[in-house]
Amino acid sequence: MRVDELQTPALLVDRADLQHNLRTMAGALPGARLRPHVKAHKTTALARLQHRAGHPGLTCATIREVEGLAAAGLGDDLLLANEVLDARRLGVVAESGARVTVAVDSEQTVQAAVAGGVREVVIDVNVGLPRCGCAPEDAGRLADLARSKGLQVRGVMGYEGHVMPVLDAQDKLRQTEDCMALLLRAAADVGGDLVSAGGTGNYAVNTWAGEIQAGSYLLMDSAYGEQGLPFRQALTVLARVISANPQGWAVADLGLKSLGMDHGNPTIPGASVWFCSDEHTTFSSDVPVAVGDLVRAVPAHVDPTVAMHERLHVVDGDEVVETYDVDLRGW
Amino acid sequence: MRVDELQTPALLVDRADLQHNLRTMAGALPGARLRPHVKAHKTTALARLQHRAGHPGLTCATIREVEGLAAAGLGDDLLLANEVLDARRLGVVAESGARVTVAVDSEQTVQAAVAGGVREVVIDVNVGLPRCGCAPEDAGRLADLARSKGLQVRGVMGYEGHVMPVLDAQDKLRQTEDCMALLLRAAADVGGDLVSAGGTGNYAVNTWAGEIQAGSYLLMDSAYGEQGLPFRQALTVLARVISANPQGWAVADLGLKSLGMDHGNPTIPGASVWFCSDEHTTFSSDVPVAVGDLVRAVPAHVDPTVAMHERLHVVDGDEVVETYDVDLRGW
Repeated sequence: MRVDELQTPALLVDRADLQHNLRTMAGALPGARLRPHVKAHKTTALARLQHRAGHPGLTCATIREVEGLAAAGLGDDLLLANEVLDARRLGVVAESGARVTVAVDSEQTVQAAVAGGVREVVIDVNVGLPRCGCAPEDAGRLADLARSKGLQVRGVMGYEGHVMPVLDAQDKLRQTEDCMALLLRAAADVGGDLVSAGGTGNYAVNTWAGEIQAGSYLLMDSAYGEQGLPFRQALTVLARVISANPQGWAVADLGLKSLGMDHGNPTIPGASVWFCSDEHTTFSSDVPVAVGDLVRAVPAHVDPTVAMHERLHVVDGDEVVETYDVDLRGW
Repeated sequence: MRVDELQTPALLVDRADLQHNLRTMAGALPGARLRPHVKAHKTTALARLQHRAGHPGLTCATIREVEGLAAAGLGDDLLLANEVLDARRLGVVAESGARVTVAVDSEQTVQAAVAGGVREVVIDVNVGLPRCGCAPEDAGRLADLARSKGLQVRGVMGYEGHVMPVLDAQDKLRQTEDCMALLLRAAADVGGDLVSAGGTGNYAVNTWAGEIQAGSYLLMDSAYGEQGLPFRQALTVLARVISANPQGWAVADLGLKSLGMDHGNPTIPGASVWFCSDEHTTFSSDVPVAVGDLVRAVPAHVDPTVAMHERLHVVDGDEVVETYDVDLRGW
């Protein structure tokens, strides 16, 4: 199938860029040094490529992601790097033979793991981002509590998300070190062998964590693209020009329902985006645009963009070479 | 089922508010004076309620919406108020017996309607919003072209979307009148009996259009809520507090993948939202918050929020009384 036969809007993933990103990361963080975060693509077929690239463990953000990966035979070592208050569905997955570990940061989440039949946990430690995670000095107590209830505590995780956007390399290194000092202190109290942290924005400098939870590297994000990382923008949103106004603007059929908008408007190469509506993006172009033309827009934030689509198409130029279901959407 | 048994995040629609909105609009714009826009909810079951409330025609933004409504027996009069370059799927729906009308604003879109087997069109006229629509003075020529190719031209549509956010009532009235003057001039050249325009933001003052394409009124949007419209905020996103930090913040399990973010962060009653991540919202609350608590957040933009969810739950207080699939998602 050719790209121009696709119903628009549609997610395109450039095959060469995808393979480049996969290889580059597997070279930098081989094997279990990377625990790819599947929330970035929510696509079992892409998780399988990461698994085949040598990374046995995968990171999830939702129960649905854990369920889908386990059902697909990718359940060697699934970490739900998020807190849940009802872990029963996770318990069912663990019962089925997959290895399921869930993050806990409170007595309630420890209790939920126990009640749900999950056997393994990591202590989620707050390392500076105001989000989940217990205080570093509280991690040992939580680990003791978890063990007292029969859970196996595999170690710690902590996400230094506030460090990801830092542009200056020295700042990024120093801030990562500060965060990981907190995490390692907690790890010493907790025990176990997992120290899980990091992301695409600092995968190269976080040498303290045992494994890095990067996800965006695979399809890439324009915000990360500005950081000079060695990954390529593999994902675009294909759209079709449905209207062209002689007053100087054109309209493509992508919009708020096909684009993650939390980082702002998408970019269209050679064009200036005016605004997005539900199913429209109005833009002006440096070159003449005709009704029927295809554009490949770069969304401002890839993760939520992918989650809005039912499928993605791996392309080689104008040829569609694979179509994968974005099958891990929802909760 | 009780609300606290739902997997979070989840869409909740308050039944009393839904019924109030349905009734209030049907009172103001009875029967065919309203052509409800289903893009606001993408839910066949809600379109059926609107149809039963006396509105025979429905407005769609995507081919998928047209297909779904027709398949559900709601195809009395479906208007795709958007341009398409490949109308073959619409032709199949028309062939099945539903009445399908598509917007055209160029020779190419006229040609696409012909090639796709669609028999009825409206001329989409630009009335001031820089988006789709031909120049008003070009509408007659396009109508002639369409008729010369065997299409039935039912009239005109034009969306004065830029008027919707106007707060001052006099300004809104005057701007609506200016837009509709353009549309009525085009209508005179085009012929036919449809003059379709408007939205929730000016449904009460647009007395020039024959039918109003309002959609947001049913579930309501916080932006419209500030305009003093007589509709109630029926939709919220249920989330669960998964972490509470003694330093003063809490985290609920909704985020960029469950919230339309183009209008900014959601609001949580009695709380201040700090930021949203993919599956988290960090907030501080005026009252103590405990892990496991439920919150009902109001998304900043309802339409794209609904499109991120597989289903919505109609609730009466803490009781789930209906669960509907958001079945018209995708393209």
